[in-house]
Amino acid sequence: METLEWQNDTELFDMMEKRLYAAVISDALDAVGFREQALRHTIRPLHPETVVVGRAMPVLCVDVYEIPDEPYQQEIAAVDSLKQDDVFVCSTDESTRNCIWGELLSTAARARGARGAIIDGFIRDARQILAMEFPVFTTGLSPVDSSGRGDVVAYNVPIECGGVMVNPGDIVFGDTDGVVVIPRAVEKDVIAAAFAKVAGEDRTRDELCAGATLREVYDKYGIL
Amino acid sequence: METLEWQNDTELFDMMEKRLYAAVISDALDAVGFREQALRHTIRPLHPETVVVGRAMPVLCVDVYEIPDEPYQQEIAAVDSLKQDDVFVCSTDESTRNCIWGELLSTAARARGARGAIIDGFIRDARQILAMEFPVFTTGLSPVDSSGRGDVVAYNVPIECGGVMVNPGDIVFGDTDGVVVIPRAVEKDVIAAAFAKVAGEDRTRDELCAGATLREVYDKYGIL
Amino acid sequence: METLEWQNDTELFDMMEKRLYAAVISDALDAVGFREQALRHTIRPLHPETVVVGRAMPVLCVDVYEIPDEPYQQEIAAVDSLKQDDVFVCSTDESTRNCIWGELLSTAARARGARGAIIDGFIRDARQILAMEFPVFTTGLSPVDSSGRGDVVAYNVPIECGGVMVNPGDIVFGDTDGVVVIPRAVEKDVIAAAFAKVAGEDRTRDELCAGATLREVYDKYGIL
Amino acid sequence: METLEWQNDTELFDMMEKRLYAAVISDALDAVGFREQALRHTIRPLHPETVVVGRAMPVLCVDVYEIPDEPYQQEIAAVDSLKQDDVFVCSTDESTRNCIWGELLSTAARARGARGAIIDGFIRDARQILAMEFPVFTTGLSPVDSSGRGDVVAYNVPIECGGVMVNPGDIVFGDTDGVVVIPRAVEKDVIAAAFAKVAGEDRTRDELCAGATLREVYDKYGIL
Amino acid sequence: METLEWQNDTELFDMMEKRLYAAVISDALDAVGFREQALRHTIRPLHPETVVVGRAMPVLCVDVYEIPDEPYQQEIAAVDSLKQDDVFVCSTDESTRNCIWGELLSTAARARGARGAIIDGFIRDARQILAMEFPVFTTGLSPVDSSGRGDVVAYNVPIECGGVMVNPGDIVFGDTDGVVVIPRAVEKDVIAAAFAKVAGEDRTRDELCAGATLREVYDKYGIL
Amino acid sequence: METLEWQNDTELFDMMEKRLYAAVISDALDAVGFREQALRHTIRPLHPETVVVGRAMPVLCVDVYEIPDEPYQQEIAAVDSLKQDDVFVCSTDESTRNCIWGELLSTAARARGARGAIIDGFIRDARQILAMEFPVFTTGLSPVDSSGRGDVVAYNVPIECGGVMVNPGDIVFGDTDGVVVIPRAVEKDVIAAAFAKVAGEDRTRDELCAGATLREVYDKYGIL
Repeated sequence: METLEWQNDTELFDMMEKRLYAAVISDALDAVGFREQALRHTIRPLHPETVVVGRAMPVLCVDVYEIPDEPYQQEIAAVDSLKQDDVFVCSTDESTRNCIWGELLSTAARARGARGAIIDGFIRDARQILAMEFPVFTTGLSPVDSSGRGDVVAYNVPIECGGVMVNPGDIVFGDTDGVVVIPRAVEKDVIAAAFAKVAGEDRTRDELCAGATLREVYDKYGIL
Repeated sequence: METLEWQNDTELFDMMEKRLYAAVISDALDAVGFREQALRHTIRPLHPETVVVGRAMPVLCVDVYEIPDEPYQQEIAAVDSLKQDDVFVCSTDESTRNCIWGELLSTAARARGARGAIIDGFIRDARQILAMEFPVFTTGLSPVDSSGRGDVVAYNVPIECGGVMVNPGDIVFGDTDGVVVIPRAVEKDVIAAAFAKVAGEDRTRDELCAGATLREVYDKYGIL
Repeated sequence: METLEWQNDTELFDMMEKRLYAAVISDALDAVGFREQALRHTIRPLHPETVVVGRAMPVLCVDVYEIPDEPYQQEIAAVDSLKQDDVFVCSTDESTRNCIWGELLSTAARARGARGAIIDGFIRDARQILAMEFPVFTTGLSPVDSSGRGDVVAYNVPIECGGVMVNPGDIVFGDTDGVVVIPRAVEKDVIAAAFAKVAGEDRTRDELCAGATLREVYDKYGIL
Repeated sequence: METLEWQNDTELFDMMEKRLYAAVISDALDAVGFREQALRHTIRPLHPETVVVGRAMPVLCVDVYEIPDEPYQQEIAAVDSLKQDDVFVCSTDESTRNCIWGELLSTAARARGARGAIIDGFIRDARQILAMEFPVFTTGLSPVDSSGRGDVVAYNVPIECGGVMVNPGDIVFGDTDGVVVIPRAVEKDVIAAAFAKVAGEDRTRDELCAGATLREVYDKYGIL
Repeated sequence: METLEWQNDTELFDMMEKRLYAAVISDALDAVGFREQALRHTIRPLHPETVVVGRAMPVLCVDVYEIPDEPYQQEIAAVDSLKQDDVFVCSTDESTRNCIWGELLSTAARARGARGAIIDGFIRDARQILAMEFPVFTTGLSPVDSSGRGDVVAYNVPIECGGVMVNPGDIVFGDTDGVVVIPRAVEKDVIAAAFAKVAGEDRTRDELCAGATLREVYDKYGIL
Repeated sequence: METLEWQNDTELFDMMEKRLYAAVISDALDAVGFREQALRHTIRPLHPETVVVGRAMPVLCVDVYEIPDEPYQQEIAAVDSLKQDDVFVCSTDESTRNCIWGELLSTAARARGARGAIIDGFIRDARQILAMEFPVFTTGLSPVDSSGRGDVVAYNVPIECGGVMVNPGDIVFGDTDGVVVIPRAVEKDVIAAAFAKVAGEDRTRDELCAGATLREVYDKYGIL
């Protein structure tokens, strides 16, 4: 196994994006006792090939029912605060009225260096976002604007998204199987274990293809 | 900006299909105070690239539990009544037992000049409908026939579909972001405003790509 | 119409896979009075072009909350018991915590000759399963492992999956419209009727395309 | 055990109301192989002490979105058609917009001799109906009128209510544990078995109170 | 019919509480074209005999995930701002994590002269609130405190509660059938019509009890 | 404040039942950092005055679809294993098909000294259980028997019930506000804190009744 080395988050995240997947990270989290780190399955990538990895910049939204005099104040501030390798992770309390994210926010986020957005609510401009290949995870699509429907209450604070606590700076990783949150305290161990497990699965698969029973290969490698 | 002109609904709808999208029409509806015109997000196009626009021919269905002696009577009459540029918009009360639409109805509807179908329930024959590229929006797929499961109670009457009132002749527009209903009384203003807004968004996007903050471009153009 | 003949299940299933679809089988089931044979619409194929047909090997799971000393015992035994032309059909009581199926089980199942898996719960490794083109139907995706989350309680026993009773050896057929279960007692009649109906639909479609009303063609052929 | 005899439905239903309960009838239905005869648990009596028994007069409703010129036509006809010992059993497709039943309909139904109403939707005037002690089972309360919200489509036809087929003349029995439907073909056997089982449970209970284990009394009486 | 007169809100609300009910007010709202004024049926009174009427003081909450340094700031301010005859009407976006209301807030609200609380979320201390007979409507009970679970974002602002817009000062009326909102612009007409209709229903009921058909009495009085 | 002393679980639970309530225990759990200990709000007592407290004997059930040759084996064993002061706490994965609990099990459980039952599924015989005043918490009522619908898979093992882990021997406390689980490791501190807090609330309530603002009393006592 080649040695894994990286200089900074960008290099690490690029490597994770290329070689890891959500399921193997979930197994690595299980191994250190963090067994409830997968966001609810209703949060799906816009495209099945999408992979996102980065540090969470958590945002808290609330449904509102008045159009404010100065709309989008906090929403703009939140997006403009994004830094290199951040992922915009947003709790809307699973709103079905609001659409916090769209093409222009994706454009602005990417310009700041952000690597994606994960929303437990709706987004719009799906065609355009797919065209620009910006990774977005969402519970659904809707054409409506956020003004008078939802507001950012706070950002860079702990939130719950899809049933999982997300703290500022936690690494989030998402692909078509779903999104997992890696708490800071265990990120080194989890990432090392995930890279290690990926290697092991190849042998199991090869022997199964060659006709071995599941019983035989599991007894041999302990991987399922 | 080029002048927008059209001779008839067909020309208008062709132009809308090519240049507009549901989100910009939703914003134009918001601007005239019609803020609840987007169907529930559960009503999805069969294909993400699908765009539909036309005048609603609303149909009201009910779940039934007996196979009638003469099945499909009203259903056939409703489809045969479709006119050029109509869209079959159907309320099933979000039935999960019935499948009101399929390949043959799509074929018959297209032969009458209809531009699509929007159902707040299930349809079948998805592969065949995709192959013929007939725009269909639905809450899900199921293989079952409607006979003894659902009946058309009335057509060309006001209905609620996906939580929005749809009157005969209202323009409906759907793409991957969802479906919006444009009431007749405001259709001129809404369409004009939508074409105008499309132009404005390009500048915003360009400046964001060039590195401006969201705050700067929003203060300049007022578009999000 | 050519004569339909087959030597064994494999030949029959290959023919069904190529020429039939779930909707026409559902109609044939309706015709013999079996009107509740379609699994709930929430059980979807991983890929819209997927077709699966085979004999059900039903499996019963339960959510658990302890990691057993010897995990996966029954799960491995169930998969290793799969025979040529079987489909792994699994009831998890629509669990949203567990992920009973993944790439390695797909690999092992295919190696035993199984034709697919239908789960009323979540699966993982969707990308890899899509790449190997193994037919899998599921209610959703999740990255989590089954150990300490779900266990196989029994296999090759009657279960309910997606609201339909599935007995060992029942033929199951699934495509993008959904999954239907053909009880053994009626399988000959249902399959014959389905092959017959497929032929009839072509004439109806042709006349509709040529401009006939739905009323005319339905009165002529009785097919909708 | 005293002999059970009755001259007519009224006498039978009075006896059932006094001595039987839904659970024991459900067990008797199980014993003859009718295992899916309990309406969904969301259909609750207005008062926990309510018991209803009678012959079903099934009614089919649909949500509507226009106020008709002549409202309530079919609804009035349905109620006026009720006969001695009938129970108004109504499918609204579990509507949450409509309120098909209220105090005046209860008053009219009782005047015709009807013994209760079972609705898979909402009712209103709960306080007044409780005061008149008319048995009503419902999924919820709402203050809204049915005009322009729901219409009766047909009555005295087979319907599904709470997930169970209800044919005209089927006996329905409801108490705080829920509602069961006894199909006509098995009503004699089911009623006889239910009266018989009620007697047996007393002994089991007495021995349990006296300290016997569940194992001992179940082995002795086979009742749980 | 006696003349209805009142000096102030308190007298009016006392009269409404004694003689009116939610269903008759809903009918009066229908008559002036306000047909969507009933809160979702999931918002129930703690006690079936509860009646509440007063002017809405709307409060907007959001789920939070951090315990603030100074908890309850806005929540305390909102309650302390209540005036004579107010009803605390609270949107929590139908939270199932938070418990915004309890015994001490009920005590404080009553001390300010408030007539009740209507929450589209959970409350706690149900036994104590029932004992003090303070009218509270809620979607459910839970023992948890609001600190670190929910916060008041704004009060005395327009909100949506149970699917209905509630503006500061709108009259709200609730009983066991549910809660209706009377917008200010129509409150005089609605209240007058409701008092008038109450009288008419008595004659209808009397004739039905005397054996008239529903058809006869509806043709005579037009009330259902 | 009188000194709290007890000789054994029975004395302690009798005291808790009389003086504590779920809300104050939830606050005490919050104070030691156990903030997710309240079962889902859908689990309700049969009677609003019911209070239950005892040590959990957790039971794991699964939905089944075959009537076993020897029904109820594990279910009987589980009930017969109950000891003095136990509470039968049962996970059915929120089944809506099965009815694991009823009058005879309540009778048997009480005879063993058990103090109640908490089920995340349905029960039957509600009238009889209410009459015997045995504390039962449930998500709903249904008349159906468990045979061929649900089986006990294991008992006296860790389970999740209503979203909360319940280990054998954990103290559970339920009243009309809901049910909380006190993990063994913190039970002493939590119980002491709960008894202490009950005393403090009286002063707060008295001053609020006397007209103090919530702000004043909260600043003084820090209790809400």
